[in-house]
Amino acid sequence: MAQQQKKMVEAITSMEQDFAQWYTDIVKKADLADYSSVRGCMIVRPYGCAIWENIQKDLDARFKALGHENVQMPMFIPEGLLQKEKDHVEGFAPEVAWVTHGGSEKLTERLCVRPTSETLFCEHYANIIHSYRDLPKLYNQWCSVVRWEKTTRPFLRTCEFWWQEGHTMHETAQEAMEETEQMLNVYADFCEDALAIPVTKGRKTDKEKFAGAEATYTIEAMMHDGKALQSGTSHYFGDGFAKAFDITFQGRDNKPAYPHQTSWGMSTRIIGAIIMTHGDDNGLVLPPAIAPIQVVVIPVAQHKPGVLEKAGELTERLKKVCRVKMDDSDNSAGWKYAEYEMKGVPLRLEMGPRDIEAGQCVLVRRDNREKTVVSLDELEEKIPQLLKAVHDGLYQRALENRESRTWVAHSFDELKKLAAEKSGFFKTMWCGDAECELKVKEEAGLTSRCMPFEQENLGDTCPICGKPAKTSIIWGKAY
Amino acid sequence: MAQQQKKMVEAITSMEQDFAQWYTDIVKKADLADYSSVRGCMIVRPYGCAIWENIQKDLDARFKALGHENVQMPMFIPEGLLQKEKDHVEGFAPEVAWVTHGGSEKLTERLCVRPTSETLFCEHYANIIHSYRDLPKLYNQWCSVVRWEKTTRPFLRTCEFWWQEGHTMHETAQEAMEETEQMLNVYADFCEDALAIPVTKGRKTDKEKFAGAEATYTIEAMMHDGKALQSGTSHYFGDGFAKAFDITFQGRDNKPAYPHQTSWGMSTRIIGAIIMTHGDDNGLVLPPAIAPIQVVVIPVAQHKPGVLEKAGELTERLKKVCRVKMDDSDNSAGWKYAEYEMKGVPLRLEMGPRDIEAGQCVLVRRDNREKTVVSLDELEEKIPQLLKAVHDGLYQRALENRESRTWVAHSFDELKKLAAEKSGFFKTMWCGDAECELKVKEEAGLTSRCMPFEQENLGDTCPICGKPAKTSIIWGKAY
Repeated sequence: MAQQQKKMVEAITSMEQDFAQWYTDIVKKADLADYSSVRGCMIVRPYGCAIWENIQKDLDARFKALGHENVQMPMFIPEGLLQKEKDHVEGFAPEVAWVTHGGSEKLTERLCVRPTSETLFCEHYANIIHSYRDLPKLYNQWCSVVRWEKTTRPFLRTCEFWWQEGHTMHETAQEAMEETEQMLNVYADFCEDALAIPVTKGRKTDKEKFAGAEATYTIEAMMHDGKALQSGTSHYFGDGFAKAFDITFQGRDNKPAYPHQTSWGMSTRIIGAIIMTHGDDNGLVLPPAIAPIQVVVIPVAQHKPGVLEKAGELTERLKKVCRVKMDDSDNSAGWKYAEYEMKGVPLRLEMGPRDIEAGQCVLVRRDNREKTVVSLDELEEKIPQLLKAVHDGLYQRALENRESRTWVAHSFDELKKLAAEKSGFFKTMWCGDAECELKVKEEAGLTSRCMPFEQENLGDTCPICGKPAKTSIIWGKAY
Repeated sequence: MAQQQKKMVEAITSMEQDFAQWYTDIVKKADLADYSSVRGCMIVRPYGCAIWENIQKDLDARFKALGHENVQMPMFIPEGLLQKEKDHVEGFAPEVAWVTHGGSEKLTERLCVRPTSETLFCEHYANIIHSYRDLPKLYNQWCSVVRWEKTTRPFLRTCEFWWQEGHTMHETAQEAMEETEQMLNVYADFCEDALAIPVTKGRKTDKEKFAGAEATYTIEAMMHDGKALQSGTSHYFGDGFAKAFDITFQGRDNKPAYPHQTSWGMSTRIIGAIIMTHGDDNGLVLPPAIAPIQVVVIPVAQHKPGVLEKAGELTERLKKVCRVKMDDSDNSAGWKYAEYEMKGVPLRLEMGPRDIEAGQCVLVRRDNREKTVVSLDELEEKIPQLLKAVHDGLYQRALENRESRTWVAHSFDELKKLAAEKSGFFKTMWCGDAECELKVKEEAGLTSRCMPFEQENLGDTCPICGKPAKTSIIWGKAY
């Protein structure tokens, strides 16, 4: 048994040894995704898909509770439509896939496979928005999009990825700005409440903002290795697209006006964030809220009379309080322990003949391997408590990682020194100049993550140029 | 009020006058779908999307209850992969969209946007199936696919459409055949139990079967106008694809063997079937199981004190038993009646000051406009009963339509005469010869719908050629 368990564990590279390989190993060994022969595209396997479905269900309910409705737009964008907004086309045209033929016929106008759908939504909005009574329009779409990336990694960066993209239109600029912030908060709450991932909310610099947006808000999470992962973004467009697409409505004053727009998205990248925030050298560790299996029941000495029966009954009973699965396969208990640790199942329930006799079982937490002996009568009460404890434990550990890897620099030299020695979030003041941002990238190898909503006063001047500081900012290396 | 209602109703072409226009009118006026500037592609609007989501939820639960798991495959198929199975590529290559460029770079191998994903699943299965222990593999995918159709109509035939495609691999031919039949039964049960659409189960002729399949099973529904709509198909592939893609597994006898395969799909076409099976001259009529709104609460004389409050309370209360919405907009009650009739909401609940005084309300069925006065205390009991009555009423009416439009022909002349005069299902015997099938198409303008599982003995010879008959068959005109 110990040997088999060891065999499984040995199959993963340790995090310390090679973080990138450790990540790839988990993706493969936990059956999350596989490669395909299609360049840069992944296959999301059943276990990965079940995680994404749980994420979708939770997010979708949050969106709908705020009045958003789902739609499905075409997957193609005619070249002329993509070109209508200048900044947008410059940002996306270099990385789209082009359809040039339908059957044997050459198309008169090329179609790109959507990299994002602002242009399609705008065209539709121009047709359906006529009066202030038609506003707001609060639409969302679940789909996959395509960006022709050069280097790819499962979940983190693939040519095709799955996401949701919200696209809303509002009567006033203020309402649209409130929506932009509201949706960023929805993402932040979801990350913290459902994924146990602490995030930093802030605004992107002009250099890092979305192509065509007036402002981009972001939530940034820190991975185990100190790198940042942009986990969700929310954009305020003003009326720029509305003007480019000639979307007008009759206002309350009977005059024509341009509506104000937002868009916001979260993608399968977030599964990469889950892996790199919570995973360990035994494999994946899943936050209970989105784990396809929350409790795995492992019958111990299952050949002994009554064990399988009792475990089966218990599993049926527990379906009312959690997503539970019994593994009654021929594999040894030890093999099963390693298997479900690899898959990140938050709680393992072990029950053998002596446990049954004593009317109890053992619950083992995935996050810290803590064991609790629980009376069978109390399971309905104990399991939700322990799932919550796993969630809290994961969140706390991630928060501690972020705090222990956050540094403040008061001079450019200090920033460069820190960046050379450490990995994490580096806080400084900033003048707001793109030139200083570029210099940090070139000389310290860091990109701006965000200007955090929770501003700090770390000094009066920009440490890069010495000019007056306008904002505090967080730098880092990013996935 | 009467005038406004009339205005709405007049806006739809009547079914009798122009069935095709009636269909298009409903798609537009019930806010199901809209056209886009992308050739042949539709926009599924929030109301259409909500219907599709309810269909998905119901079907997905049926699939999962039988052990199927969801995956996500890439949306692209490299040209070489598509060409691996000869019949399959011949069937699909003429109608695919080709991606030739990624960004500014020309691809060395063209990619088509998936028209269906057998080839992608086979490539994946070749990687993950090694032993009989890995079987069966029961995968399903929810996605959109693209087929470059020349003429398109919303839901019925569009270049892009949404569907699910199941792809399964089995140890034995028998198991795969059982799966093929089982999934056809799932579709048939879903159509009858959830959509109130009676369907005829049968097998497709060789001419009509899926490209690359050994056998295709189908469910055929009859629309209001007598035309058939193929509503779901399930294919048995034998080991043809397995051989083409070199998928082998080590059998129980330790020898390598080819697995046996199925695929099965249902698409957004089914929304077209719902419209054309149940709709009437007042608009859409939705079967309660998939209606986004099952009961709409219309406060009558809502400006009078207490009416809106009481209606709001009632709506909250009813959320426990049905999907309910209150319309407290400024529109007149009559306008609202017409609006929710157009949207096919199964039950309308009217409540005015006098009703409130009497502790009652009026429930109006969408299918037959039957009114029932119900005590407010009994709503939790009555609403589910009435929703079931609507379902049963719709099913019964559809069944009667089908029965009254089904004819038997004993000679080719009789078949041609019937086909010229009637619209519906035409039953004959058939020798099984493709030549006779072609003759029926050319001379009677009918295609074969299926060889029904419920065989009938309508004679001993094929009425077209006079040779011995092998099967009974149903002919018709199809969407």
